[in-house]
Amino acid sequence: MNSFGDNFVFTSFGESHSAAIGGVLDGVPAGLHIDLTMIREALDRRAGRCQQSACGVSARAVREADEVEWLSGVLDGVTLGTPIAFLIRNRDARAEAYEAFKHSLRHAHADSTYEAKYGIRDWRGGGRASARETAARVVAGNIAAQLLAKKGIQITAKLVQVGDETRPEHFDEVINRYRAEGDSIGGIIACEVTGLPAGLGEPIFDKVQAHLAYAMLSINACKGFDYGSGFDGVGQPGSIANQHSGGMLGGITDGTPLTFRCVFKPTPSTPKAGVKGRHDSCVAVRAVPVVEAMTALVLANFADERVKG
Amino acid sequence: MNSFGDNFVFTSFGESHSAAIGGVLDGVPAGLHIDLTMIREALDRRAGRCQQSACGVSARAVREADEVEWLSGVLDGVTLGTPIAFLIRNRDARAEAYEAFKHSLRHAHADSTYEAKYGIRDWRGGGRASARETAARVVAGNIAAQLLAKKGIQITAKLVQVGDETRPEHFDEVINRYRAEGDSIGGIIACEVTGLPAGLGEPIFDKVQAHLAYAMLSINACKGFDYGSGFDGVGQPGSIANQHSGGMLGGITDGTPLTFRCVFKPTPSTPKAGVKGRHDSCVAVRAVPVVEAMTALVLANFADERVKG
Amino acid sequence: MNSFGDNFVFTSFGESHSAAIGGVLDGVPAGLHIDLTMIREALDRRAGRCQQSACGVSARAVREADEVEWLSGVLDGVTLGTPIAFLIRNRDARAEAYEAFKHSLRHAHADSTYEAKYGIRDWRGGGRASARETAARVVAGNIAAQLLAKKGIQITAKLVQVGDETRPEHFDEVINRYRAEGDSIGGIIACEVTGLPAGLGEPIFDKVQAHLAYAMLSINACKGFDYGSGFDGVGQPGSIANQHSGGMLGGITDGTPLTFRCVFKPTPSTPKAGVKGRHDSCVAVRAVPVVEAMTALVLANFADERVKG
Amino acid sequence: MNSFGDNFVFTSFGESHSAAIGGVLDGVPAGLHIDLTMIREALDRRAGRCQQSACGVSARAVREADEVEWLSGVLDGVTLGTPIAFLIRNRDARAEAYEAFKHSLRHAHADSTYEAKYGIRDWRGGGRASARETAARVVAGNIAAQLLAKKGIQITAKLVQVGDETRPEHFDEVINRYRAEGDSIGGIIACEVTGLPAGLGEPIFDKVQAHLAYAMLSINACKGFDYGSGFDGVGQPGSIANQHSGGMLGGITDGTPLTFRCVFKPTPSTPKAGVKGRHDSCVAVRAVPVVEAMTALVLANFADERVKG
Repeated sequence: MNSFGDNFVFTSFGESHSAAIGGVLDGVPAGLHIDLTMIREALDRRAGRCQQSACGVSARAVREADEVEWLSGVLDGVTLGTPIAFLIRNRDARAEAYEAFKHSLRHAHADSTYEAKYGIRDWRGGGRASARETAARVVAGNIAAQLLAKKGIQITAKLVQVGDETRPEHFDEVINRYRAEGDSIGGIIACEVTGLPAGLGEPIFDKVQAHLAYAMLSINACKGFDYGSGFDGVGQPGSIANQHSGGMLGGITDGTPLTFRCVFKPTPSTPKAGVKGRHDSCVAVRAVPVVEAMTALVLANFADERVKG
Repeated sequence: MNSFGDNFVFTSFGESHSAAIGGVLDGVPAGLHIDLTMIREALDRRAGRCQQSACGVSARAVREADEVEWLSGVLDGVTLGTPIAFLIRNRDARAEAYEAFKHSLRHAHADSTYEAKYGIRDWRGGGRASARETAARVVAGNIAAQLLAKKGIQITAKLVQVGDETRPEHFDEVINRYRAEGDSIGGIIACEVTGLPAGLGEPIFDKVQAHLAYAMLSINACKGFDYGSGFDGVGQPGSIANQHSGGMLGGITDGTPLTFRCVFKPTPSTPKAGVKGRHDSCVAVRAVPVVEAMTALVLANFADERVKG
Repeated sequence: MNSFGDNFVFTSFGESHSAAIGGVLDGVPAGLHIDLTMIREALDRRAGRCQQSACGVSARAVREADEVEWLSGVLDGVTLGTPIAFLIRNRDARAEAYEAFKHSLRHAHADSTYEAKYGIRDWRGGGRASARETAARVVAGNIAAQLLAKKGIQITAKLVQVGDETRPEHFDEVINRYRAEGDSIGGIIACEVTGLPAGLGEPIFDKVQAHLAYAMLSINACKGFDYGSGFDGVGQPGSIANQHSGGMLGGITDGTPLTFRCVFKPTPSTPKAGVKGRHDSCVAVRAVPVVEAMTALVLANFADERVKG
Repeated sequence: MNSFGDNFVFTSFGESHSAAIGGVLDGVPAGLHIDLTMIREALDRRAGRCQQSACGVSARAVREADEVEWLSGVLDGVTLGTPIAFLIRNRDARAEAYEAFKHSLRHAHADSTYEAKYGIRDWRGGGRASARETAARVVAGNIAAQLLAKKGIQITAKLVQVGDETRPEHFDEVINRYRAEGDSIGGIIACEVTGLPAGLGEPIFDKVQAHLAYAMLSINACKGFDYGSGFDGVGQPGSIANQHSGGMLGGITDGTPLTFRCVFKPTPSTPKAGVKGRHDSCVAVRAVPVVEAMTALVLANFADERVKG
């Protein structure tokens, strides 16, 4: 299904070609002042629109900004405690198809050819599985992050590796090299959360790290997650490796900064592979705000009661 | 929270004053041709716009129709298997307040007066608890009903009692009498479902009648639910009363028509009680399509696997 | 499925013929002293073992008490915050069948005859759908009630009608008359909850009355639910009927006592209908503690956060 | 909470000191013949009881086997479609404490000292967070695996790295070296699933890899998860890395074998760290059947409808 969370629930909708993408965020307490500028900045980072080095890569072609239209749950910038619904129009939505739908009772004629051409399954994947859907996650996750920030909880993700390169000042160079070759390269994002109280999480299935892993692996192109000493700690004996708890012990936060990593594969849709058009040489760059957004959604679910108070 | 169902999930959003009300319907299989005329008719019945006796009451003042705007999940009138998002604009939404929100970062000044005037809690009830929200239920429920209809399952609700009157041809007279007095009166709606296969439902908590009761009591002004011999059967001995199973035995459909009733109280917001403006003298009239919609949502959840095939 | 609730979750298991029935109660906060005597008394009422008029009926044949065996989640009578698992042995469980199961790898021979005789479906209904399952509900619900009682919330259900009789002092007489005839009769149980704070519940689907209706209709033989003015209020105009809110307005508790009713049908399994053996002439009598238990489970889910504090 | 899954739900209970650990498995279809020998073998591997090289390590001290007691949901070795409840007694449970609980109403005296000594929170972690809880997962997961096996789906996990050693024939040597030093070492487990049909999973949050990651990170001592090219693929360009889909594309199985890894940290409770008593020098060894069990639970949830048929 298309919802995330139990207490703080984000429901996502929209295909790349539909009238809009968007979401409904349920469980946000009343009285939160939403900072629209923060949401805009996160969306810009996801869209690769930032001009500065803040993105970790050089300037990119300016794309038109995603405009968020708020439908419910907020008034004068303050949350009402009711579901927050929002949408972002798809500029290239097939308007004519949409028009046709309005009169479908009389003209629902395209169905059989449509199925013959795409098959429902393939075509649906094409629309819904588009990375564009992550824009809705960024909006919802940023609201969660603002809620957490009020309690002193800060989430910061950053690119820490591109290919084999771990020196940030060389990332642009590596990425540009692959772009020039019409190829792509993977990357690793590290995320740190500070200000979390000890005691969030539960000892069995609802371990904090389990929900973080779920959230990260739900992001397109993410191939792995680890925390604390992670995969790199396998060669270290117990007395050393366990110095890195990653902020969670037995599934429960221990009050120290929470740290985890996730790895993003290179996109297979490259000129080298015969796919034409603009492509991301390193999708991990634009995944950074998505990692932050999903982390915020996870933690808002855990921190719900404490944050509400 | 604001979602209904597990397999066929309807998430509702919107306040009476927000930009729009609407919903997201998740779990609708791909390939369903949606009949927009049926949705329109159900919305008209809910809005009290029908001119004929079909409503069970005389003609009412013509109100402007609710326009459904489809955001995702359908193309050329056919469902894609992805979440179906839709909205209905609130014509009287405070546009200026919405505008203010757009710039809330700089001008979020209304907060303290707002709380002093309404209190978050009261004000939110005013907006979200409005019966207008049921329009979104009608849209979602009608899609569920169309899915069920493909399998031969038909849901029909009708008003069977107004006050103490049980003769339909006298309902208008009774309602008009209360309206003339500036008062209101309650009513009972009976619902019948035909074409259900035997075997839907589960023996313990997920009894079909338990989910129907939940759904009906979630409708504004509904004060009770019974099925089969119901409350009236209490005076009959076992050998007689159990002739009326209501289509469910041990929580599971038995293949006979499913029948249940729900009672709606008279609205307390009447001229007699000092509340000015238009009022519904018998809210049960407009609740009929809402009862059908919620019934469809319940059954679509149970019938999901069978219907999907 | 076989779980009830989201925050305070009761999972029920067991057939009438299996080794045991029982349950797991998840979400009980740590530190609650459990009063086993209260649980015992509720179980005795459900089993029809009480000797006094407390049951509302005359003395019945003494049955052996249900013995609760605690498996986890409590130590020295105090809850640990972990899942509380318990079981009640079925004295008449087919031990030999169970033994056979232990060696089923080699001797799983009964399967085909078993299916030919019962069909999995029918037979399973026979075992799982037995009213015996409600004993597990009573145990879990009583723990919920004890948690609520610590906050001053009291739940009291009682039989208010048997057949057409509404005078409690005549109930035994009516029941005995039907028993003598080998027949059965229905009854109505009224439940009152005092001490609830205002503000529990949510305005749309998670209305308190919706969850109560769900819970009541999940009880075997329950055919209807209403609250406040209910079905009887349908003939009263708005100015009168709405004096009876039943303690809930718009789905949310208003701080006044919560009142609702539920109706139980007469059992169809009577000597008159050709069913031999002991039978309950009025199942509503033994349903009283089950109504209390399910009410407590509903309210513990709503009151969770407040009660936890 | 303590439940895993939506369609095929495993609820776990028990502390290391309680009367028993165990679980309830809901959603298992009727008619499955359960092979108790397979469950026993998986439990033995988890307990480190196997004598052969099958465990990947040398013979260990023989421990007493975990005895599973079946409470409901099975008859003559065949599932009934009802919840399957089972328990495993804790041999070293503090029987006297349990006895005291039986009379807690009169003798609930230990409460204040108990809180003063442990604090509810710490003490509860000690009991519930014990790795012993994974025995219940192994039972439930093995039933899921048997259900999947009927459809030709096979799950095989194995230890592929201990410390920096990747040659299986050297694992015992490495582990014994750390044991001799009173220290511990981490390991990596690889899991492969064959026979999965294409098309399981959903494109957004319910990606198969997301649920697998959640399941793996819910296992004690697991610090990371990756699939396909995973973390190691970060240095490979798009044209190479994407050869390793790991059996999932866009969150949905592609019909090829599914492959993933998870890393387990060395236990910090070693003689070198001052912790006395028997210890596991490499907890990854005993985690192998737990990885298989959790994988089976994940896939049984996804494969539910297909498998049920």
